[in-house]
Amino acid sequence: MKNTITKTFALSSIGLVFCLNLFGQSIENKNLTQLVDPFIGVDGSGNVLLGATLPFGMVKLSPDCDFDTNSGYVSGKDISGFSHTHVSGTGGGPKYGNILIMATTGDVDIINHASPKTSEIASPGYYGVTLSKYNVQAEHTTTMHTGFHQYTFPASDKSNIIIDAGSFLGHNAVPGEAQSLVGSEVNIFSNNEIEGYSRIRGGWNGGDAYTVYFYAKFETPASAFGTWKGSKISMGNKSEYDSGEKTGAYFTFKTKNKEAIRLKVGISYISCLKAKANLEKENPGWDFNKVKLAANEVWNKSLNSIIVEGGSPDQNKTFYTALYHSMLMPTDITGENPKWKSSEPCYDDYYAIWDTFRSSHPLLSLILESKQVDMVRSLIDIFEHEGYMPDARSGNDNGRTQGGSDCDMLIADAYVKGLKGIDYEKAYQAMIKNAEVAPGGDERKEGRGGISDYNKLGYVSIDFERSGNRTVEYANNDWAIAQVAKGLGETEDYKKYKKRASNWQNLWRPCYSHGAKGFIWPRNADATWADSAYIFSWTENKSLKGKFTEFTGGTWPDVFYESHSWEYSFYVPQDVKTLIEKCGGKAAFISRLDTFFTNNYYNVGNEPGFLTPVLYNYVGRPDKTAFQVNRIRHASYNATRRGLPGNDDSGAMSSFFVFHSLGFFPNAGQDIYLISTPLFSKSILAMENGKQITITAKNLSDKNIFIQSATLNGKPFNKSWFRHSDIKDGASFEFIMGNQPSAWSTTSTLPPSMSDFE
Amino acid sequence: MKNTITKTFALSSIGLVFCLNLFGQSIENKNLTQLVDPFIGVDGSGNVLLGATLPFGMVKLSPDCDFDTNSGYVSGKDISGFSHTHVSGTGGGPKYGNILIMATTGDVDIINHASPKTSEIASPGYYGVTLSKYNVQAEHTTTMHTGFHQYTFPASDKSNIIIDAGSFLGHNAVPGEAQSLVGSEVNIFSNNEIEGYSRIRGGWNGGDAYTVYFYAKFETPASAFGTWKGSKISMGNKSEYDSGEKTGAYFTFKTKNKEAIRLKVGISYISCLKAKANLEKENPGWDFNKVKLAANEVWNKSLNSIIVEGGSPDQNKTFYTALYHSMLMPTDITGENPKWKSSEPCYDDYYAIWDTFRSSHPLLSLILESKQVDMVRSLIDIFEHEGYMPDARSGNDNGRTQGGSDCDMLIADAYVKGLKGIDYEKAYQAMIKNAEVAPGGDERKEGRGGISDYNKLGYVSIDFERSGNRTVEYANNDWAIAQVAKGLGETEDYKKYKKRASNWQNLWRPCYSHGAKGFIWPRNADATWADSAYIFSWTENKSLKGKFTEFTGGTWPDVFYESHSWEYSFYVPQDVKTLIEKCGGKAAFISRLDTFFTNNYYNVGNEPGFLTPVLYNYVGRPDKTAFQVNRIRHASYNATRRGLPGNDDSGAMSSFFVFHSLGFFPNAGQDIYLISTPLFSKSILAMENGKQITITAKNLSDKNIFIQSATLNGKPFNKSWFRHSDIKDGASFEFIMGNQPSAWSTTSTLPPSMSDFE
Repeated sequence: MKNTITKTFALSSIGLVFCLNLFGQSIENKNLTQLVDPFIGVDGSGNVLLGATLPFGMVKLSPDCDFDTNSGYVSGKDISGFSHTHVSGTGGGPKYGNILIMATTGDVDIINHASPKTSEIASPGYYGVTLSKYNVQAEHTTTMHTGFHQYTFPASDKSNIIIDAGSFLGHNAVPGEAQSLVGSEVNIFSNNEIEGYSRIRGGWNGGDAYTVYFYAKFETPASAFGTWKGSKISMGNKSEYDSGEKTGAYFTFKTKNKEAIRLKVGISYISCLKAKANLEKENPGWDFNKVKLAANEVWNKSLNSIIVEGGSPDQNKTFYTALYHSMLMPTDITGENPKWKSSEPCYDDYYAIWDTFRSSHPLLSLILESKQVDMVRSLIDIFEHEGYMPDARSGNDNGRTQGGSDCDMLIADAYVKGLKGIDYEKAYQAMIKNAEVAPGGDERKEGRGGISDYNKLGYVSIDFERSGNRTVEYANNDWAIAQVAKGLGETEDYKKYKKRASNWQNLWRPCYSHGAKGFIWPRNADATWADSAYIFSWTENKSLKGKFTEFTGGTWPDVFYESHSWEYSFYVPQDVKTLIEKCGGKAAFISRLDTFFTNNYYNVGNEPGFLTPVLYNYVGRPDKTAFQVNRIRHASYNATRRGLPGNDDSGAMSSFFVFHSLGFFPNAGQDIYLISTPLFSKSILAMENGKQITITAKNLSDKNIFIQSATLNGKPFNKSWFRHSDIKDGASFEFIMGNQPSAWSTTSTLPPSMSDFE
Repeated sequence: MKNTITKTFALSSIGLVFCLNLFGQSIENKNLTQLVDPFIGVDGSGNVLLGATLPFGMVKLSPDCDFDTNSGYVSGKDISGFSHTHVSGTGGGPKYGNILIMATTGDVDIINHASPKTSEIASPGYYGVTLSKYNVQAEHTTTMHTGFHQYTFPASDKSNIIIDAGSFLGHNAVPGEAQSLVGSEVNIFSNNEIEGYSRIRGGWNGGDAYTVYFYAKFETPASAFGTWKGSKISMGNKSEYDSGEKTGAYFTFKTKNKEAIRLKVGISYISCLKAKANLEKENPGWDFNKVKLAANEVWNKSLNSIIVEGGSPDQNKTFYTALYHSMLMPTDITGENPKWKSSEPCYDDYYAIWDTFRSSHPLLSLILESKQVDMVRSLIDIFEHEGYMPDARSGNDNGRTQGGSDCDMLIADAYVKGLKGIDYEKAYQAMIKNAEVAPGGDERKEGRGGISDYNKLGYVSIDFERSGNRTVEYANNDWAIAQVAKGLGETEDYKKYKKRASNWQNLWRPCYSHGAKGFIWPRNADATWADSAYIFSWTENKSLKGKFTEFTGGTWPDVFYESHSWEYSFYVPQDVKTLIEKCGGKAAFISRLDTFFTNNYYNVGNEPGFLTPVLYNYVGRPDKTAFQVNRIRHASYNATRRGLPGNDDSGAMSSFFVFHSLGFFPNAGQDIYLISTPLFSKSILAMENGKQITITAKNLSDKNIFIQSATLNGKPFNKSWFRHSDIKDGASFEFIMGNQPSAWSTTSTLPPSMSDFE
């Protein structure tokens, strides 16, 4: 049975609400957390968080096994401890990994205390492991701002809890992406209370210093304690002030066999006292299982947003884990903003919106609309106080931008879908700022680098880095602005930005590759085509001038970020219709897509291609969409530790899978969804307004992946796309599936493109 | 007798070293602090700090009488308390005013506790006042990071010390320049110990949040205490965590008549524990007079850098107070940088370099060279960590830029004067960044706004704000770069930036005003002259498009920052020779200068004109320089509370006076000093290398202001200028003065200009 109306409640009063709806009545949720396997995607390049957290939780308490990985966790290495702050699924230089706790026995060793791990168990809101070196069972659960630790020791006079205030991830990342210590501090109050902080700067986004404050309390008084600074341990000492060094503290207990030592750690970005207040408010008792169950319940309510039926155990597990992964980021730090005072919600760890605007945020708009509204409001609040909305942000500092100003996409997506509670006038100012005011020296931090070229020449010239993907992304961003402009009655702006949204054509070079005509190509400021460009050399570890081809990949200083022209030349989400014309018409476009997929030029692990599989719908071939989506789902996702096709990117890969399991995918920033092929015979999405979207797939099987016919709310439905307005008040799709492509939707109205608008 | 070698020592180990030279021998300093009157310039628009501090001291403990003034102090208003952080002489929106302490009697009133003030006494490192409402004598002294408070109460059971962690200056400044509270906290440990912090953002530079931590200890245990948050007082309560509100605490004592309650407050930008460590290290005892004397001694050592003889009491007082004011800013926060860890010195409150590069920093290069080296190193360290050197910086955040990238001037000034210990290669990178990478949306924060125009068109077009002064300032900055480029062997760069240093000519319009030919004029991007421009309207409080004239003043969005074309058209410090030609030759230039001064177009209270009085030397008329300088010294400086001609601007006005009292003035960024006219019959500058510069003015009187003849080191000296290399190893000037202009230096070699270089 589905809960429909208690969801927002549950998420906003974590740890306290148990299965109560608005009227105080008990509502039964399906036990979906049992279908989540947090180990999926922890290895390979998935980089997902393994440890305990709540949806968008600020505390992400997770084992650190390798200080140069993004999540801290890898299967094959020993555990050095459990730190309270992490991100999930990210690439580039790691971030966080602060306030690390470790349990050991014997003499205190502040450096070499890592232990092999056995008997790992993880579920939403819980992680347990045996630290076999010490025969200690470690267990964790969390509330939004606190971590709850339970360590079951063997009999020992020297059972230690080590609290490392100087630990962090990413010491050795590539230049400009490493974290570094600014300072740290510990201050022991008594034999069961300590506070302190870790101040760190850098990481992937090159962020300013952020400070993670903690206050920790033990259930049992320690028999001894001490502190350290640098490598100097001071037995019995109580405090180490910040002189720019690593500091820490230890507490030693005399334990009987199987004696559990529990400690709770409040975390804050404001102060130690605030961390203590968070602890006292959210986590006042010592019943570990109660807090664990509460965390499980919160996750269950969130996961009950979507009920699927008819899947295999592995499919169910893959799906609910993907849904779970879609709710780990960004981080809700409302009430914990150390930079300004505001009544607006505060979210951090947009990492990056370039990754998540395409599927993660549209998913939230469907099933957790109020969260999406809060996130958009937080972006506008950042603009208000810091001048630009972020494309990425972490540790409360903007950075990096990979391509477009993709916060614009979130604003437009919310606007066209009618999300309430957002100041769209102010949001519009923030979009205009992106489009008009060059970020100059901060162009890797925020705004649109090369916008001076773009606004003057109609494209970003090769004088600026990432000129290729920036141009095509800015064009899509501009259509986002145009749509909001139109809605707000800014007619002149609408015309201006609609015109700019065609700027991708200025980089369209009518050349050929593998039978495909026309490619996005770097161009000099004098309008001549560039045949050489900066190209990243992995052997030299820098970009060197070289011959540019349609397969030339790139990174920060190059033409295309994380991809090549074959991929980016499909990236015209705002005007697929014109793109098709430029490619030589429908048949040529189909052939081009076929070539793209057949030759494996497509990479599902990279977000610029997220929309490409459903582009077949724009030429009346949803069967080919179904074929590719089904292939990708099978080939790239599974229920193993390497079950994700790339960095999960804050849940982007996972939400891509969620959508395509439901059988459709959004064209983000537009009110359009493209139908692919359902994975489950029945799916029910519960929206916050109490309405449901039901998708039924009759005759579905591994081979019956092609839609033969469809109805929407009982009436024949022949389009391979629908609008948000078609579903926002509830909808019931029924698809009849078969094992062969059918005539369904091949001749019906095609999805609209920008060029269809006045 | 002069100390020569202990100066750097004394400044870097404040509070501990008393009159010991390198060999541990006692050295006698003149008692010069008695000649300093901190009340000079506190009223009018001087805005100087009144309260206790050390040279470049982090703690500036001073009375706050008006929360909308820059220094906190005004003569005519009651004292609300004494806060620990201030700047000196600034304009625009106030900054700091944090951690305010007040002494009262009776019931605790956390809002209306201001008291009239009587019996004020101030001297370097000390401030005392009677709070007449309560009959409490308040006294303060400081170390670098701590404030020492002594309050002598009447007999009362309710003698209170109020500690306001939510107080700050500048609530109502102009939009974008006000400070605002982010949060605050207090935490009482016992009846004589408390810690807490204030977190504030904004202020003149629009800075990010900064946090001022404190730890305070009373000598006497209190009989009662309590806290407050917002307006709610909680008697007996110990702590108020940060929930974004104002918090504070009070301690109540039962005092006998004349009983002194002492408290010491450690301040830190790192943490409360660091504040405590600062207190324990610098200020361990309870002997108020001892700390007061130590502060006085530190000041004495610094002031003994220059000994003057032959002045009137008022001249001596004006001079030594000006010298004192030249050592208040920037703020040495070495060891207190919360943003990154570095072995480099750390200075904050460059407020702004635009103000101070012309005289304050050149003065330090002469008398406190090691401090100047440290400051330059701190600027380079900021570049390393944040991407740009600041033009202004406060609260550890860059901003604002008023015109040029004037940190370039400091680098060049240090380079041409041969200052050691600076990584000039790295500094050069920072200069090039300024010159080449547009700050975009951050153009009021750092870098060179409009640099894209400047580098392409050869001038900043009117499309950018402050296009007039930016163009002329960038040109001077470019000559600074060129000089360093030449020294570093970057020959191509030297040529490039030397060429750019002539860019001011691109805004030189050959029009006439009051007989003067040629004015810097706003220009459109298409090269046509602009006859209308944005002009600040004080009635409308914004800039409106209007007719541009050579007297059109301006502010941020206008053509000339804080001045008009008559003033800025003299601003070509790098190439006065060419400027003279452009103006029509020597006679025309003399006539133009005469017109400028006679008609009072000149404003000594504004830094762009700092060099103008000595420009007569460039046409062989040092007598006219002497006349104007003497006139300005008399008309604009005196020993009263309104004795400064404008905002002291971190000591800029004061250091202008110091130089012209010595009888010369630097052309900052070049190794050139221009001779004006000495105020004292003898001046001795002690440099850190142990050498001295002696200036003797024989026959000097109020009327005998004209140099008749001169010798340098006993040899005839006929130039009206000299190089740094002429004096850096010691020098002895002797001037014979008379009451009429003489032929001295009228036909000798003129000061060199850029156009004299290959």
